[in-house]
Amino acid sequence: MDSKQPGRRRFMKRGVALAGLAVSPAGMALAPESASAQARSSGVPDMNSMEYVLYGARSHFVDTVRVLEGPAHHETRGPRPDPYRPGAGTPVKDLIGIITPSSLHFTTQHFYGIPDINPKEHKLTLHGLVERPLVFTMDDLKRFPAVSRVHFLECVGNKNVPRDKNVNDTHGRMACSEWTGVPLSVLLKEAGVKNQATWIVAEGLDGGKHTKSVPMAKVMDDVLVAYGQNGEPVRPDHGYPLRLLVPGFEGIYNVKWLRTIKVVDGPYVGFQENSRFVAPDPRSRDFIYELGPKSVITFPSGEDRLPERGFYAISGLAWSGGGTVRRVEVSTDNGRTWKDAQLQEPVLKRAFTRFHLMWKWNGEETVIQSRCIDDLGQIQPSVAEFAKFWNKSISEIHRTSGSKFGHANFIQPWKVTADGSVQNALEA
Amino acid sequence: MDSKQPGRRRFMKRGVALAGLAVSPAGMALAPESASAQARSSGVPDMNSMEYVLYGARSHFVDTVRVLEGPAHHETRGPRPDPYRPGAGTPVKDLIGIITPSSLHFTTQHFYGIPDINPKEHKLTLHGLVERPLVFTMDDLKRFPAVSRVHFLECVGNKNVPRDKNVNDTHGRMACSEWTGVPLSVLLKEAGVKNQATWIVAEGLDGGKHTKSVPMAKVMDDVLVAYGQNGEPVRPDHGYPLRLLVPGFEGIYNVKWLRTIKVVDGPYVGFQENSRFVAPDPRSRDFIYELGPKSVITFPSGEDRLPERGFYAISGLAWSGGGTVRRVEVSTDNGRTWKDAQLQEPVLKRAFTRFHLMWKWNGEETVIQSRCIDDLGQIQPSVAEFAKFWNKSISEIHRTSGSKFGHANFIQPWKVTADGSVQNALEA
Repeated sequence: MDSKQPGRRRFMKRGVALAGLAVSPAGMALAPESASAQARSSGVPDMNSMEYVLYGARSHFVDTVRVLEGPAHHETRGPRPDPYRPGAGTPVKDLIGIITPSSLHFTTQHFYGIPDINPKEHKLTLHGLVERPLVFTMDDLKRFPAVSRVHFLECVGNKNVPRDKNVNDTHGRMACSEWTGVPLSVLLKEAGVKNQATWIVAEGLDGGKHTKSVPMAKVMDDVLVAYGQNGEPVRPDHGYPLRLLVPGFEGIYNVKWLRTIKVVDGPYVGFQENSRFVAPDPRSRDFIYELGPKSVITFPSGEDRLPERGFYAISGLAWSGGGTVRRVEVSTDNGRTWKDAQLQEPVLKRAFTRFHLMWKWNGEETVIQSRCIDDLGQIQPSVAEFAKFWNKSISEIHRTSGSKFGHANFIQPWKVTADGSVQNALEA
Repeated sequence: MDSKQPGRRRFMKRGVALAGLAVSPAGMALAPESASAQARSSGVPDMNSMEYVLYGARSHFVDTVRVLEGPAHHETRGPRPDPYRPGAGTPVKDLIGIITPSSLHFTTQHFYGIPDINPKEHKLTLHGLVERPLVFTMDDLKRFPAVSRVHFLECVGNKNVPRDKNVNDTHGRMACSEWTGVPLSVLLKEAGVKNQATWIVAEGLDGGKHTKSVPMAKVMDDVLVAYGQNGEPVRPDHGYPLRLLVPGFEGIYNVKWLRTIKVVDGPYVGFQENSRFVAPDPRSRDFIYELGPKSVITFPSGEDRLPERGFYAISGLAWSGGGTVRRVEVSTDNGRTWKDAQLQEPVLKRAFTRFHLMWKWNGEETVIQSRCIDDLGQIQPSVAEFAKFWNKSISEIHRTSGSKFGHANFIQPWKVTADGSVQNALEA
């Protein structure tokens, strides 16, 4: 028996003994046509079919899907050129716990299409300022001791603006997964890094050869060459079979479909920096890579409606590119007073952290909001504080792309009106 | 806009603007027939289809499926009555990290079929020795502060026997997920537990009304009423929309499709205890619920073949129903000496913990094995030690069901032969 496919192989051998089952040309057994035809036509396999026994699916009552990019995004970024691969956001409102299901993890495509890579043919080349250039197959990489860590990914475009209606719009470009792979530092040790090496340049196998430079200090700290996501191989839209993981840095650093790493003596300016991401501002954020402390209340949030006055468990997510969430403060009185929310274990470095605060709503209009304090002592700012720091007006901050001035990590306030409806209260 | 389905709703509104897309009767958009017909016929949506943008899937190069129960299982447990819902094991060999993808999580059915429960109609009734009997809708339960924890589930049938060929056979009835829900202690506080209450009885909505009794001390410690699994609603084959989670206890305690909890003054003997699980032995394990310290090497393991002498990263999983894995020892010389393996962070209570040990294989035949030591100081036994404790012969231990004498938590040794092939070396 082939140890890599015991289930399917065994099933094929035993298929004859399982009464009433048809084997499709692809080798996957299905329940009789009559029983599962309806289920399959709706995209959900019949729960009692052999297909479902072999590989489960969610209930047909659950229909959460990714969120296609909204008008606010297109206003600042322009329309996407490609109808088949629009960016799609995480349905943050429906998230449970800290793990984002891979099927719902936001995606951003910088170029057309997803490469269809055969893992048996894929190679990672490590070259440049090294003693021994190396080429690794996927099997080679899997022979190193694996490391798994729970980390968030966040796009610099994860920017809340006043016209966003709900938390999927304001914060849909982020997600959190268990990532598994090999520390890049281990591979670099094999290759032998030369003294003058200070950066790496990673390149993907997509149509546009997406590249990104990462400073060596970060590489040696916690960068992974990742082949696993939430217990299975990295999904195609997240870089199958291999991606770079640069925990806490802007999403764009996490090069998907990773094929080469070149060790160099300074940052390269790639297509992304050269076209869309360069800021002329003297306090340019070009070399601020690490995402700041951030949080958002996911319940109650925009477009929710509280049915009555009384007790509610305010719930939300907090994270920081700088490290671990140390504290989350919640205000339920328009920012006059702040209370420590309860952090839900486990609180992991550069990972989503859930927080809760029990709140008794007295039925009057108010504004609720959260702010994150990380273990570096960094405090999430209000949009007014953020604009002041960058010496811009608030409206100018809202008008520009999330990557132009700093990272849009400002507080998201939600107004609860007297009728219980919840609205975006971000200062315009 | 309906805040609960923003993605699909928005997509429907914008569907007309997306050139070349057809909308199916179920409201799900698909790429043109020509482009995705082949992909769909193999069960994998085309990576560049709108279907895939909205809800992702794994690569068509990844074909790991659950493992149908093998001959060893049927020998001790008898054949399953139901061809449509055989039990199916986790493909442990292919697991990455500590999270088991929900689609691959082992399932055990005690009765025919999976109930198809509408969450809007589902209720949990809490009654018996309480001041105020309560009925909760799913919405009611979600208004309590949620708790998420990573915990393993293991069936008492997760029993390694000498005839098993590989680690999927020996250890396929276990998995580990992030579970989210409400502590049952919080619900019981709402209801007011009477003084004489010492146990609860939980009952499911499946055809056989599966019931299980849990002592109150455990309930008040860490039992959850869970609606979330790995960031999404609990899957149908794991109890959608609600299940009991009794961390570290035998899998059978984790009642799926949970509908009533009765507070009582002693354990009830349900169908399972009465028919299959009662042991006449004076040292009966009937009231040993907590699973012991356990571990298994997943690489290299049965049916692997080491291509050459040299360095290998031995890797495996360890867990304990009693608490946290404190140490894993690995022997590569047939049990003569043991070395501490490296534990991979995070090491969580009652969760899978990955371990690694670098090993230089000299090309000679040997036996490799691991043993888990938990934070209660419990040490995983060899099968000989296990048999001695239960005063049985080793062959008697192998012949009987995993639940008859203790829990089958004995060490799994793998023989590496001179040609590099790896075989089950469990003492017969």
